[in-house]
Amino acid sequence: MLPFARVTILGLGLIGSSIARGIRATMPTVRVTGYDADPAVRARARAIDLCDDIADTAGTAAIDADLVMLCVPVGAMGAAAQSIAEDVPAEAIVSDVGGAKVSVATAIRQALPNNIVVPGHPVAGTEHSGPDSGFATLFKGRWCILTPEGDTNPTAVMRISTFWESLGAQVEIMDARHHDLVLAVTSHVPHLIAYSIVGTASDLEEVTQSEVIKYSAGGFRDFTRIAASDPVMWRDVFLNNREAVLEILQRLTEDVTMLQRAIRWGDGDALFDLFTKTRAIRRSIIEQGQDDARPDFGRAHE
Amino acid sequence: MLPFARVTILGLGLIGSSIARGIRATMPTVRVTGYDADPAVRARARAIDLCDDIADTAGTAAIDADLVMLCVPVGAMGAAAQSIAEDVPAEAIVSDVGGAKVSVATAIRQALPNNIVVPGHPVAGTEHSGPDSGFATLFKGRWCILTPEGDTNPTAVMRISTFWESLGAQVEIMDARHHDLVLAVTSHVPHLIAYSIVGTASDLEEVTQSEVIKYSAGGFRDFTRIAASDPVMWRDVFLNNREAVLEILQRLTEDVTMLQRAIRWGDGDALFDLFTKTRAIRRSIIEQGQDDARPDFGRAHE
Repeated sequence: MLPFARVTILGLGLIGSSIARGIRATMPTVRVTGYDADPAVRARARAIDLCDDIADTAGTAAIDADLVMLCVPVGAMGAAAQSIAEDVPAEAIVSDVGGAKVSVATAIRQALPNNIVVPGHPVAGTEHSGPDSGFATLFKGRWCILTPEGDTNPTAVMRISTFWESLGAQVEIMDARHHDLVLAVTSHVPHLIAYSIVGTASDLEEVTQSEVIKYSAGGFRDFTRIAASDPVMWRDVFLNNREAVLEILQRLTEDVTMLQRAIRWGDGDALFDLFTKTRAIRRSIIEQGQDDARPDFGRAHE
Repeated sequence: MLPFARVTILGLGLIGSSIARGIRATMPTVRVTGYDADPAVRARARAIDLCDDIADTAGTAAIDADLVMLCVPVGAMGAAAQSIAEDVPAEAIVSDVGGAKVSVATAIRQALPNNIVVPGHPVAGTEHSGPDSGFATLFKGRWCILTPEGDTNPTAVMRISTFWESLGAQVEIMDARHHDLVLAVTSHVPHLIAYSIVGTASDLEEVTQSEVIKYSAGGFRDFTRIAASDPVMWRDVFLNNREAVLEILQRLTEDVTMLQRAIRWGDGDALFDLFTKTRAIRRSIIEQGQDDARPDFGRAHE
């Protein structure tokens, strides 16, 4: 039994287009309608036959959906929900993929008070953007976090869970506030630091940009991948998960200060102890299938 | 014409064992002698036939070398050089692969005042350690920085350059002090931040380690790879490149503070501008062959 028969995807970037491709691969009888606010993206989606239908307005896209999946940047979720308010059937379930959940859930619920809203966040992605960058297996083996309110219809939550499981994800239910804190740690602050370190490196007077690029294989290049992620998406995440990001950032700053002090005073034991502990976490991530076990992420060396 | 006929490698970890394998692959007539202070590593090196000969003391390993390559952690370079002082031929060239060059060059020159010393640093590696982790193509397409003093015999520098080029690297000559600053930016501070962020994440009370691991695909896992690098090697790098690391770290802290402020005050334009600029650097790194062009470093998704 498929959880939905007619899925509408608003926003056809990396995540939206991966969902479209994933549905076609795993639930081929589901009818998928797509819409993107950018006419060029709609044209491209038609050209590559991404969905069964690409609508020219959000309202037409949603008019007969039983699931509407909002795949736009976090800051645009409220407007996207608003844009289908007059047309979406009351019995359609509305979900989303935004990386910050408290603010997004509030915005969607305000715009669509008559629909069941099951906010979600698949913890998956690459640094690429746009309708060409998605692929059907993006969610395979990854976690998708759902943050329904306590009184949300359990059948609706179950259907969304089944939907993500069909795409290959594992599903976890979590409180929206806790989600925002967890993701501040595992995603938002890492991205902020990556953006920052790449910015710092490109602004030095004593070291040229050409040197930074040439010698990036010493570690820096790993940060540039993350710092190549979509600017609008990430701007919105930081503006919409402000509190948790600032809290974790403060904690990180304290720890960096401690390390700074250890280096200044030549406290090798403190450094060694930390560097040993962190190795174990990498091992667990690989054991639990959350990263490639091959050295260097499996990068080609030839 | 091969630059050397008898190469001795002291230290058979990732880099030393990659050099041994690289020589066998590209300069098969060169005789390679290996030594490691750890008897278990020597036994393993013999078992996997890593070198033509594995010596039981550093002195015997160096006794007829025309190149001695020191591949031990930065803090052990002086002692490694000392350990061959009585046996190494005066005409042998001594080089190394340490990630910090001012302190290492001083230590080696003090221990071996009669040899020509051409300090070097191949900017390459993976997060794995030990004699089994090396591979012949590790240096292919990567840069190797040499930091000879101004009065170093040019033929010796040329021979070391040719050696690295045979292993597939591109060679750059640089002042040792400048090397240490450049690498603080492109390697040392990124590693320190990665270690720190992984440490911070594993110490929070509100977010469990199990959550950090499960949702690491949001970006965090990229940092754990770097933070799984050899603890002794990295402790030594920080203790031996203190000044440059602290200077760049200070610069980064200022930039993070600026971002923190932008988030607190909702300055989306400042965030967007930075996140757009950093994307261009990623593009240059890929264009110059310093990273895998495939999304997600080419990680497997299936």
